[in-house]
Amino acid sequence: GDGRMGVVYNGDDWNFSSRIRVSFTASGTTDGGLEFGGSVRADQAIAATRGTSASVYISGAFGKLSMGDVVGAPEALFGDFYEVGYTDLSSAGGSNDIGYLTADNGGNVDCTSVGPGISACANSGPNLLYTGTFGAFSVAASMSDGKLNGATIGGLGVPVAVGNSTVATLTTETSVTQEYAIAGAYTFGNYTVGMGYEYSNGRNQLSGTDMDVDMISLAGVGQFGNTSVKAVIAHRGQDADVDWYGIGASSVFGATTVGGYIQYAEDNNANTDVTWYGLGAEYDLGGGASIKGGIADSDVSGSDAVADLGVKFSF
Amino acid sequence: GDGRMGVVYNGDDWNFSSRIRVSFTASGTTDGGLEFGGSVRADQAIAATRGTSASVYISGAFGKLSMGDVVGAPEALFGDFYEVGYTDLSSAGGSNDIGYLTADNGGNVDCTSVGPGISACANSGPNLLYTGTFGAFSVAASMSDGKLNGATIGGLGVPVAVGNSTVATLTTETSVTQEYAIAGAYTFGNYTVGMGYEYSNGRNQLSGTDMDVDMISLAGVGQFGNTSVKAVIAHRGQDADVDWYGIGASSVFGATTVGGYIQYAEDNNANTDVTWYGLGAEYDLGGGASIKGGIADSDVSGSDAVADLGVKFSF
Amino acid sequence: GDGRMGVVYNGDDWNFSSRIRVSFTASGTTDGGLEFGGSVRADQAIAATRGTSASVYISGAFGKLSMGDVVGAPEALFGDFYEVGYTDLSSAGGSNDIGYLTADNGGNVDCTSVGPGISACANSGPNLLYTGTFGAFSVAASMSDGKLNGATIGGLGVPVAVGNSTVATLTTETSVTQEYAIAGAYTFGNYTVGMGYEYSNGRNQLSGTDMDVDMISLAGVGQFGNTSVKAVIAHRGQDADVDWYGIGASSVFGATTVGGYIQYAEDNNANTDVTWYGLGAEYDLGGGASIKGGIADSDVSGSDAVADLGVKFSF
Repeated sequence: GDGRMGVVYNGDDWNFSSRIRVSFTASGTTDGGLEFGGSVRADQAIAATRGTSASVYISGAFGKLSMGDVVGAPEALFGDFYEVGYTDLSSAGGSNDIGYLTADNGGNVDCTSVGPGISACANSGPNLLYTGTFGAFSVAASMSDGKLNGATIGGLGVPVAVGNSTVATLTTETSVTQEYAIAGAYTFGNYTVGMGYEYSNGRNQLSGTDMDVDMISLAGVGQFGNTSVKAVIAHRGQDADVDWYGIGASSVFGATTVGGYIQYAEDNNANTDVTWYGLGAEYDLGGGASIKGGIADSDVSGSDAVADLGVKFSF
Repeated sequence: GDGRMGVVYNGDDWNFSSRIRVSFTASGTTDGGLEFGGSVRADQAIAATRGTSASVYISGAFGKLSMGDVVGAPEALFGDFYEVGYTDLSSAGGSNDIGYLTADNGGNVDCTSVGPGISACANSGPNLLYTGTFGAFSVAASMSDGKLNGATIGGLGVPVAVGNSTVATLTTETSVTQEYAIAGAYTFGNYTVGMGYEYSNGRNQLSGTDMDVDMISLAGVGQFGNTSVKAVIAHRGQDADVDWYGIGASSVFGATTVGGYIQYAEDNNANTDVTWYGLGAEYDLGGGASIKGGIADSDVSGSDAVADLGVKFSF
Repeated sequence: GDGRMGVVYNGDDWNFSSRIRVSFTASGTTDGGLEFGGSVRADQAIAATRGTSASVYISGAFGKLSMGDVVGAPEALFGDFYEVGYTDLSSAGGSNDIGYLTADNGGNVDCTSVGPGISACANSGPNLLYTGTFGAFSVAASMSDGKLNGATIGGLGVPVAVGNSTVATLTTETSVTQEYAIAGAYTFGNYTVGMGYEYSNGRNQLSGTDMDVDMISLAGVGQFGNTSVKAVIAHRGQDADVDWYGIGASSVFGATTVGGYIQYAEDNNANTDVTWYGLGAEYDLGGGASIKGGIADSDVSGSDAVADLGVKFSF
C-alpha cells in the first residue's frame, strides 16, 4: 500500500491532505506455463467486481492480455510525464497526464444528473489491452466493447439498484460508445520512438451530442546520463481539431529527483489555446518514505498556481 | 481471491466482462475448544460492518452457529445446481440458483425509489443459521429477526446518512418481515435425501402488499461414478400457489467438467409457467486457472439465449 | 480484524446484530530513524483515500504527527469511558463517548438533503494531530484546515461525481469551519490529571446558523488495584452554555471485567438536562474471543433502556 500527508495550496488557501491505500497483487502459473494474475486496491473493491476498476491479465510468449480498467494502447507504451508534487496537483486544471483519447477512466459515458450533487453515468465496462514486445519493437492494441453496461453513480463505479439488486434503467438516450487504439514503438539504445492512433465515437458526456474523434500521437523518450526526457506531439481530428504538444523531463542526483513538464493545446475549432506546466522535487528518506513537493500553473485566466509539500510513504 | 475475464453474449451483443475480488478468512479457537471465525470480501467490507454481507460463526460439538448474510436452512443442506458459464449467466432471467424462499440476500425489503436510478431499501439485517451433523443426519435452522434495520441504498448495503452520520428515516410504510426455515437430510452411501420448510411474511418488495408465503422442498442428491445428480421438487403456498421442479447434473472427465440444469416453475394463481436451462463446460489449466463457458436460455417470450466464454482464476 | 455476533434489545424488540471487519496496519523506518505508517480498515478504504477515514503518521524524538480522521487533542490524552456491551449500545442516545467538541468525525459540515433518505455533506477534510510525551508531561494539539473539501454523500465519505469524476459543487452556502484544540496531562504514579481546550466556529450542521463554541475540560484518571477510574468535568461556552460531568470505572477479576459510566449534561440556554449511564461485563474465552453484554439508559422521556449480549472475536 501507500500513504501520504502534507499541505496543498489550492490557489486560494492551504489545506491538509492525507490518504492511505492498501493494494493486493495476485498471480499464478498454469501447468502449460501461462502466467495470470491481477491487482486491486481496497478502495476499488466494489468497482473491481464489475471490471470498471482494477484489472486481470493472462500472459505468455504471445504477449500480455489485460482486461478491466486498463490504459489505452499509446499510454501503455509511452506513459505520462513526471508526476509533480506529492498529490500530483491535478487540481490545477492540467496535470502531468498526457491527454490520450481512450481508456484509462473506466469509460463513463452519458452522465445524467439525478439530483443536486449526484449524477448517474453509464459505463462502457471493462476494456481490453494487448501488449507485446518482439526484439526492439513493442506493440499495443486496446478496445472497449462499445456497449452500455448499466448505470452507475459516477464517483463510485458501482451499479445502482432499484429494488432488490436489480440494476436501474436510466432514461438516458441510448448511445454506443466504441473506443479502440493501436500503438507501436521502436527502441535503440537509450532512445525510444513511437506512434499511436486512437478512435472514439459517441463520447458525448460533455457536449451531449454524438461525435467522432480520432487522435494520432508521436512520442520520443531518451535517457541522457541522469536525465530522462519525453516529448509528445498529437492531433485530434474528425469532429475535433486540436493540436497538442508536451515535453517533460526528470533528473536524479543521489537521493534527490527533480522533474517537470510543459504542455500546450490549441483548439482550432474554438480558436482557443492553453499552456500549463508543473515543476517538482523529491528527496528519498529511505525505508520507503520521501519528501515531495511541487508547483503547477496554467495561463487560463482566473486560475491560480497550486503547490504542495508533503511526505509520501510506500508500504 | 479470484478473478475472471472473457466475453459474454447478452442475447443481443458480445461484451467484455472481467472482475477481481480479494477474500479474507479469519479463525481462532477459545481455551474451551470452541472454534470461531468469519470471512469477508473487500467489496463487501461496508455492508459487512452491518451484517448484511459476509458472516461470522462459532462452532463446537453442538454444531455451527453463523450470523450475517447466511443462506437459509434448506440451501445450507442442498445447495444450488452446477454453475454454468464463467459468469454464471444469471442475466438470462433464470440461473443455477434453486429458488429458496428465505435468506441469501441480506433481506432487502420495502424498497422505495428516491430518484431516477436510485432506490432506498430497508433491510431485515443479519440472519441466523444453525447447522449440525449427527451421524447420517444433518439438520439446519435459520431465521431473520423480522425487524427493519435502517434504510439503505439498494446496491450498496450501506446506511444512508442524513446530516452527520445519522441513519435516515424513510417515510416508507412500516412492515415486519419475518423469515424462518428448517431442513433435514439423511445420507446413506452416495445418496442424500432431504426436506426443507420455509416461511416468510411481509415480503412485499415486489407487490407492495403484505403477504404470507411458505415453501416446502424435497431434495435428492446422488453420486454415480463420475456424475453427480441433484433433483428438487418444491411448492410455494399460503398467499402464493407455485409448483416448481428442477434437476441438475455434472460429470468430471479428467481435466474437463461438464454440467447443466433444467428448471420449471408454474404459478397456479397467475396461470403462467416458465422453463429455463443452462449447459456449460470447463477445462482445468492447472495452477488455479480454468477455461469455462456456457449457454443459458428460457422459454419466456422475447428473451434470448445468453452465453459466455472466459478464463477463471483462483488466487 | 474483528467480528461479533449476538442480540441487541433496542428498547422495543430484540434484534440480531453481527459484523466482520478487516484491518490493515503498515509501518516503516527512514534511514534517519523516523518511524512512519498508518492503519485502515477495508470498510474505510474509499474515505481513506481522501483522509476522512483512517490516518497516517510520522514519529520521532519530537513526538508523533498524525493526519486523517484523527481524534482531537483532549481525546488523544484522556480517551473515552469503558465501552459497555458488545455493540457499545450508542443507540441509547448517549454512549460511553466523552462529548469532546472537535475532530473524531471526519468533520462533516453543512449537510444538505438532496432527496428523501440522501443528504450531501461538505467535509472539513483530514485533521492534524500532534502528541508528545516529555517525562511526566504529555501534550497534544490538533486542528482542522477549516476549508470545505467537496461534497460527500454523508454515510459514504466519498466524493460525489458529476459526469466523469468531477466533484460536484453543491449550492450550499459557503461556511468556513475551523477547529483547533490543545491538551496537557501530568502523570504521577498511578494517577494522571489533565486539561483540554477546544474551539470550533461555523459548525452549523444542526442549527443552520454559524456559531462559535469552545469547550474546556478537566480530566482525572486513577488506577486503584484492579480498578481504573476516570472522571471528566467540562463546560461549553461562547454561543453555547453547557455544563457536563462524567465518571466511569472498570475492574478486572481474572477472566471477568465489569465496567460502566454515568454522564450528566445541562444546557443552561435551553434550560434542559439529561443523565445517561451504561453498565456492562465481559468474560474472556481465550484465543481472542469473549462474551460481552451490557445495558444503557437515559432519563430522556420517551426513551427506553437498551441492552445486548454477544460474542466478540479478535483475529
